[in-house]
Formats: sequence, structure tokens, C-alpha cells
Amino acid sequence: MSYQHITYEVEDGILVITLNRPDNMNAFTSIMRDELIDAYDRADEDDSVRAIIVTGAGRAFCAGADLGKGKETFDYDAQGVTAETKVHRDGGGQVTLRMFQCKKPIIGAINGAAVGIGATMTLPMDVRIASTQARIGFVFSRRGIVPEACSSWFLPRVVGISQALEWVYSGRVFPASEAKEGGLVKSLHEPEDLMVAARELARSFISETSAVSVALSRQMMWRMLGADHPMEAHKVDSRGIYHMGQSPDVKEGVTAFLEKRPARFTMKPSSDMPPYYPWWQEPEFE
Amino acid sequence: MSYQHITYEVEDGILVITLNRPDNMNAFTSIMRDELIDAYDRADEDDSVRAIIVTGAGRAFCAGADLGKGKETFDYDAQGVTAETKVHRDGGGQVTLRMFQCKKPIIGAINGAAVGIGATMTLPMDVRIASTQARIGFVFSRRGIVPEACSSWFLPRVVGISQALEWVYSGRVFPASEAKEGGLVKSLHEPEDLMVAARELARSFISETSAVSVALSRQMMWRMLGADHPMEAHKVDSRGIYHMGQSPDVKEGVTAFLEKRPARFTMKPSSDMPPYYPWWQEPEFE
Amino acid sequence: MSYQHITYEVEDGILVITLNRPDNMNAFTSIMRDELIDAYDRADEDDSVRAIIVTGAGRAFCAGADLGKGKETFDYDAQGVTAETKVHRDGGGQVTLRMFQCKKPIIGAINGAAVGIGATMTLPMDVRIASTQARIGFVFSRRGIVPEACSSWFLPRVVGISQALEWVYSGRVFPASEAKEGGLVKSLHEPEDLMVAARELARSFISETSAVSVALSRQMMWRMLGADHPMEAHKVDSRGIYHMGQSPDVKEGVTAFLEKRPARFTMKPSSDMPPYYPWWQEPEFE
Repeated sequence: MSYQHITYEVEDGILVITLNRPDNMNAFTSIMRDELIDAYDRADEDDSVRAIIVTGAGRAFCAGADLGKGKETFDYDAQGVTAETKVHRDGGGQVTLRMFQCKKPIIGAINGAAVGIGATMTLPMDVRIASTQARIGFVFSRRGIVPEACSSWFLPRVVGISQALEWVYSGRVFPASEAKEGGLVKSLHEPEDLMVAARELARSFISETSAVSVALSRQMMWRMLGADHPMEAHKVDSRGIYHMGQSPDVKEGVTAFLEKRPARFTMKPSSDMPPYYPWWQEPEFE
Repeated sequence: MSYQHITYEVEDGILVITLNRPDNMNAFTSIMRDELIDAYDRADEDDSVRAIIVTGAGRAFCAGADLGKGKETFDYDAQGVTAETKVHRDGGGQVTLRMFQCKKPIIGAINGAAVGIGATMTLPMDVRIASTQARIGFVFSRRGIVPEACSSWFLPRVVGISQALEWVYSGRVFPASEAKEGGLVKSLHEPEDLMVAARELARSFISETSAVSVALSRQMMWRMLGADHPMEAHKVDSRGIYHMGQSPDVKEGVTAFLEKRPARFTMKPSSDMPPYYPWWQEPEFE
Repeated sequence: MSYQHITYEVEDGILVITLNRPDNMNAFTSIMRDELIDAYDRADEDDSVRAIIVTGAGRAFCAGADLGKGKETFDYDAQGVTAETKVHRDGGGQVTLRMFQCKKPIIGAINGAAVGIGATMTLPMDVRIASTQARIGFVFSRRGIVPEACSSWFLPRVVGISQALEWVYSGRVFPASEAKEGGLVKSLHEPEDLMVAARELARSFISETSAVSVALSRQMMWRMLGADHPMEAHKVDSRGIYHMGQSPDVKEGVTAFLEKRPARFTMKPSSDMPPYYPWWQEPEFE
């Protein structure tokens, strides 16, 4: 609850995570990293959270890593961080890997500048929408560093390899309209309409759907991006159809459909995931 | 020949498979599953079939699983199915995995409602076109079940992960125009023009081409979606160039090109696939 | 320097490789194959090359394999090639695999006909732009041969599986406008403006960026297309952030940003790649 660099607010089934350092354009810190990971942990355990919106406080979404340490910002030896942790792990990647495992749909509501980690942290989100005032940049080549937060895995899968490379090579900050054209964001909105649109999209994911079906679907779709053959999906599908096929939610879902009335699903992601979930083993960082 | 829930008609090198339960909106049954698998088996063995069009009889393409058993529809234990088969296999996936192995181009002509398995069975097709009257839905979240027919593997590869998730989360039934915009279907046609357009597209695949080249191309392209490195393609390409390079079809193809006349290819997919085909081992269901 | 079938010219950090058999529509030969591989080797070693543009001399980009040997063109046994090399390797694939490993951004400036290997050799390029007069064809099915140059790996990743199959099945030669619509080329230009646009794009990749960051980014993005899980990216990202984070380029990049002046990066791809590079083992042809 007592977060310093983000806020966490649940209303009507929708969690809004707000990056909250408006005086610093919500620049990313190690505190923000830890708080974001904690927020996704909480969201997964909390059945009152059906969908998640991530946005920024004030005019920016997130202007990138906090550069308060100047040219030492990324020098983890000089900062003594490496000595402590033995091996350096990219902080952005720790967040995006946690998002990858999330059971709830995640919508990015990019309200302003999204640069560096501010841009790459949106890539494991399921849908991104943006303010017409947003500006986005994968600026790593202009800082002498590399794309992070697993963006080399996510970005080409989201926008295609050619568009990904063009943005990453130049390191340009580009307008929301170019993000839309390039397939990075789904739609553009006037600043004052952005959260309304994000909530409307979130509601379309939760209003008539089974929370457990949605949670399983999220993991099935993202995980199968890494599967070499559709047989991998068939194995998981077959278990899903078998277990969910005898569940309360499917019985309600089919009955409601046949009776032409809205379904009232009761299964909970916190306690009612089918026994084969998770079907994968999360790889370790080595 | 004597199918109950589909029809199978070959004309001018084009097989039309019609889902044929018009009084039930062509709802999917275990009979339809077995007949579709049999139809693809036959098509692969029949050199008079150069391309395949799949469509629906009457107003629907396929309205999804037959819900005649009500809320027990997906309860395979209650139906005694599991006891018989030991382990449940998703029926839709058995069909789409068979389609994945097909030697002939497959075109979906979506003439009307394509919902649930009616939508997911189109994903391993090579090109989808639709009637302006079509409506499509990946409705699993609204029934309390999971995406099936290997759609978690196919859908993000066909339309991108973000569009896939948006459709799958909401479970909405959406109009043909949205399917076109989202990259699911290539073109829209007035209902009465749909089969004309499908046949024209099929003819473009077969009129001046080598059937063996097309069969090899289909497997190369789909299989390499699962390859981690282009070297995998290079190994298969090299064998293809070597074996096809000394084949009657390439000699005719090059000669015809140099003589500026249409080629008359003679090699047959049923008997003249090169010795290295298939170069993969199909994974087992375990 | 003394190439026969290509030219190699460096100016202002941009290497232009020109396919140079204008009297033969720049048809691909084994000499051109060897010279292209050599040119990419040189470019990687030459720090004065920051980006590469590939184009064709005269009216064509590359009309495909030289068919001077008529119907024996692809019969490597008849030509005695196989006896010498034991196992046939596709020449186009040898070039595209070399391009895959390149440290510099590659832009295709498709000035005219790009057919067969003329089309497939552009696929591992990072961005393709084309003249309005260009015509493109994946014509393998019309010659009785198979897609090569690892195009079964590249093409579906660049334009999507459905568009890839449609072009490959029909073997049609199609206009530049269709290539643009299908996502194969980024933009169309009047013939006289094509190289101007290509140079402008190249400059956007090099004018304010770290050459080492760009080189690492190229390999990260392309390689992660083959990774099954974002954890693979996280491992490489973490090493990149750690090593580049203490490098001269990042210190200059951050300082310049904070001082609101252009950065003057000094690290060289020939000698200053970080110690973990390359982090992969290139697979062998077997």
C-alpha cells in the first residue's frame, strides 16, 4: 500500500498503476522497479483485480532511467552494486519478466513521454493506447547503451523486425502518430480521453468473461510465441478443454449462452486455476 | 465420399470442402472432425486436387461446437469419452494439426458466422477471405473455456500478439470489417462474389506453378516459423535446390521461361516428392 | 577492391554495394555470391562503414539466378559442382547467413526488378525501400524449384505467414505498390529519389548514435527472433547493461544528453565490442 514511486488503485475490477514521480517525469528507479514487481504480485493474488491499466502521473509516462547519478548511472561497479549482487541483472527486465507471468490483462495508457525503459516496459503489456501528446523513443543507441527490459524479444514480436530495427537504430523520439502507424499503439486519444478509453477497453475484457479463462488465455498466447510447433499448443489446449470443460465456469457459460442471458462466472484466479497450471517451468537467470 | 457433415467436391483442380449442417449453422461435431481429417488425407493423395477452399453451407461458416449436450458439452468425463480414450485430445486441434501437414494451399472462404472452433479452424489456412456479412468471434472467455485448435500458436502468428489478445480476452463477436482491419482476412466480398474470389485466388496458386514446388513451399514456410535460426532453413533449402534442381519440373520451368511460353509441369505430390521429404519428424501427442 | 560483379563505395560513413552486371539485369552468379560475402566481411572490419545500402546498377535490382546454363542451371551434379563440394549448399543462403551476422545496418534500395534470389537476398536487410518502378517476385513455384536464401525463415517474419504464402504460391511478379501494401518495403520513391531517401535513412542510423550500440542492437533484435522465452533476452541485456554501462560511450552519451549537446562516441565495432560478444555460437552447416 505504502508505495513511494507508484500508486495502486482498484475500482470496479480495474487496477490502475500510476508511475508517480511527476516532478521527475516519472523517471525509473530501483524503488520503482521493486514496487512494480510487488504490485503485479499483489494484483495476481487479488481477485478483485480483473484487469490492469498502467499510466503516468503528470505530463510524462516515464522519461527513462533516472539519470541523477550522471555518467555513473549505469556503472554498477562504480556504484558498488555489483559487489553486492555478484552478477548484474537489468532492472527493467526484472519488471517485464514479472509482467510476462501476470494472470491479468495489462493495458498501457501512454499519457506522455515514454522513453528508454519508459517505452520498453510497455512491450509486455497486452494492448497499448496513447495520448496524441505522447512521444516515444527507444533511445539506447544515442546513450551508448543497449536495448533492455527484454525489448529485443518483445519489440520485434509486437511491431515486426523491420520497424523495430528502424526505431532502435536511430534512437529517435517519435510522435504518437508514428507509434500508431508502426503498430506499437492501438489507438490515439485526446489527453483528457485517454483514461476513459483505457477503462472502456479494460471493461470489454472483464464484463462478460471468466477470470480464469482470461488468465489461462493470457499465458497460452504469450507462451506459445516461443513454441516451435503447434503440437505444444495442442497439449496445453487438450488439458484446458478437459479441465475447464467440467468446471463450474463452463457450465455457467454454456447455460447462460443457451438461455440468452449474461453469464455469472464464479471461479477465481487466486484459488481455482486448473491443476495443470502452470504447465511450464519458468527459466532461471544464470 | 459418403460424408455426413461436410461435402467434398473437386473441379478444375480445386477442392471445395463445405461444412454442411446448414440447419445447425454448421456446428462442429466429432463426425465433422473425423470427416475433415479424412478429407485432408484424401486431398493430399489426390493429384487432381491442387488447392483447397473451405466454406460453409447456408448462412453460417461454422457457429462453433455443437451445444446439443448443453452444459455437459465439454464434460468428457460425464459423457464417458475420457474413460474410452484415456486422455482427452482437443478435437479442433486434431483437425488443425492435420491441416498443418497438408501439401496443398488452403483458402478459407468465410461466408458467415465463424465462432469458436469455427474461427480457430481457419487459422492454419494459408489465406482467409470473407463475406461482408461474416461475423467472427474467439468467444472462449465468454463460455468459461480456453482457446483451442492450437489457436494460441496460430493466432498471434497470423494477426500479432496484441490483436490476438484483445479478441481473445473480450470474447466479442466482431464484424468482417474488423477482421480485415486486424489482418485476419485478406479481403471482403459481397456474399454472392465470395466463392468467385476464392476460386480466382486458388487459380493464381495453381495455373502456372509446379504442384511439387508449391507443396514443398507450404511446408517450408510454416515449419520455419518454429525454427530458431535461419541455418535451419539453409539446410532444407540446400537439399531442395539440389534435388529439385535436377528434376523434370525445374528443367521445364527454366526452359519455358527462356522460351517465353507457359510451363507444363508434370511432377506429382503423391509420388514425386524429393527423397528428403518430409525432413522433419512430426511430434507425438503425449 | 577489384570486384567483378559488384562495386563497393564508402562515403560519409555509408557503404553502397551495387550489384553490377547491368547488361544482365544484375543476375546472380557464384562470383557475385563470393564478392557479396567478402564485401560484408570487409564492412564489418571497417569502422569507416557505419551503414550499408545495397542497390543495383542500371534498370534492375537483380533479376535472379543467371540462367546462362539453361535447364542445367540448377543441376549441380550435371555441372560437376557436387562432386567437388560433396554436399550442395545454396549460394543465396550463404550470402543471407553472412548478412544475418553483420554488425552494420543494411538498407535495401530496390531500384528495379527484384526476382528470385534478387528478392530473397533483400529479406535479411533491416529496411527495404523501393523505386515506384520496382517489380518483385518470389517466382520459385513457376520455375519448379523451391524458395531459397533462407527465405522460408525470413519472409514470414518480415511480412507475416499469410502474405508470404500468397506470394510464394503464385510466383507472381508484383508491382512496388503491392510490396508496400504487403509490408515488404517501407516506402516508395521516384527512381531519381531512391538513393537520396536511402542515404537519408542511413544517416538517421549513424548521425547521433554509438556504432557499438547499433552493432549490439542489430544482433540482439535478430537473434531474439529465435529465442523461446524473454529470459534469453534478459541474460543478454544484463550483460549489455553491465559492460556498456561502464564504457566510454555510455558516459559520453549520458553526459551529452545532460549537457544538451550532440554526443561524440568513440568506441569502434572493430575493436571495442564488449567481452561477451558474440554471446551465441553460430550453428554449423551439416
